[in-house]
Amino acid sequence: MTFQLDDRLRDDCHVLGRLPAGLVLLHRNAALPWFILVPETDVAELHQLPDALRISLVGAQDGLARFVARRFECHKLNVAALGNQVRQLHVHVIGRFEGDPCWPGPVWGRLPPGPAYGRAELDDLRAGLGDAIAMVPL
Amino acid sequence: MTFQLDDRLRDDCHVLGRLPAGLVLLHRNAALPWFILVPETDVAELHQLPDALRISLVGAQDGLARFVARRFECHKLNVAALGNQVRQLHVHVIGRFEGDPCWPGPVWGRLPPGPAYGRAELDDLRAGLGDAIAMVPL
Repeated sequence: MTFQLDDRLRDDCHVLGRLPAGLVLLHRNAALPWFILVPETDVAELHQLPDALRISLVGAQDGLARFVARRFECHKLNVAALGNQVRQLHVHVIGRFEGDPCWPGPVWGRLPPGPAYGRAELDDLRAGLGDAIAMVPL
Repeated sequence: MTFQLDDRLRDDCHVLGRLPAGLVLLHRNAALPWFILVPETDVAELHQLPDALRISLVGAQDGLARFVARRFECHKLNVAALGNQVRQLHVHVIGRFEGDPCWPGPVWGRLPPGPAYGRAELDDLRAGLGDAIAMVPL
């Protein structure tokens, strides 16, 4: 299998780095801390992953969730694998706030345009994720 | 901790049975095969679960997802822990179909009223989940 990041994910997101479980992306809309994990696989569903990658992905999800909760002091996390629009398997880890633009609804397809991340902010997040979950920056 | 199923989950769902990882619910709206796992915990986030329960929940999720995919021949699964409206930790495992009432958007807060499950259908699902993932019917 030659893994290639889906075009839409690449257009919508910054690529922050790589974990053993896959790529770590950040949605370009900075209204919410919206991270996405993309395991390097060609299966479309979590339950189809090989055991080792499934376990590694859960660890990555939880580590990322812990980082997002602490860093952004969000009120709730939304952790989800949908894939209705982009079939390449990916897991959203999104920090939510009471009163955020979509609260209490889901964000997909409903988040209004928001601010962009600055270069320093992206560097800072890459460094933070390097420290917190040993992400290798890209 | 005395575990009690959240009122809204109980109102919205049939309780199908119990796994080591928690309760198995089925949303009353039969327009989509919409299952929900509720681990017996008082934490609100997946990453806060004790390791043994976290692992057991992933196994339950994957087993349920496999059952839903096979039984309903759905085109995609949506697996998600949101909890913006109901804080009790719960994981949705939803079978989606191209052209279903919410496709390709998410279902939460958007699924129009649909048909109800009949008694025989519920019994049959309980038996199927007993065979597939050793669910104890309730």
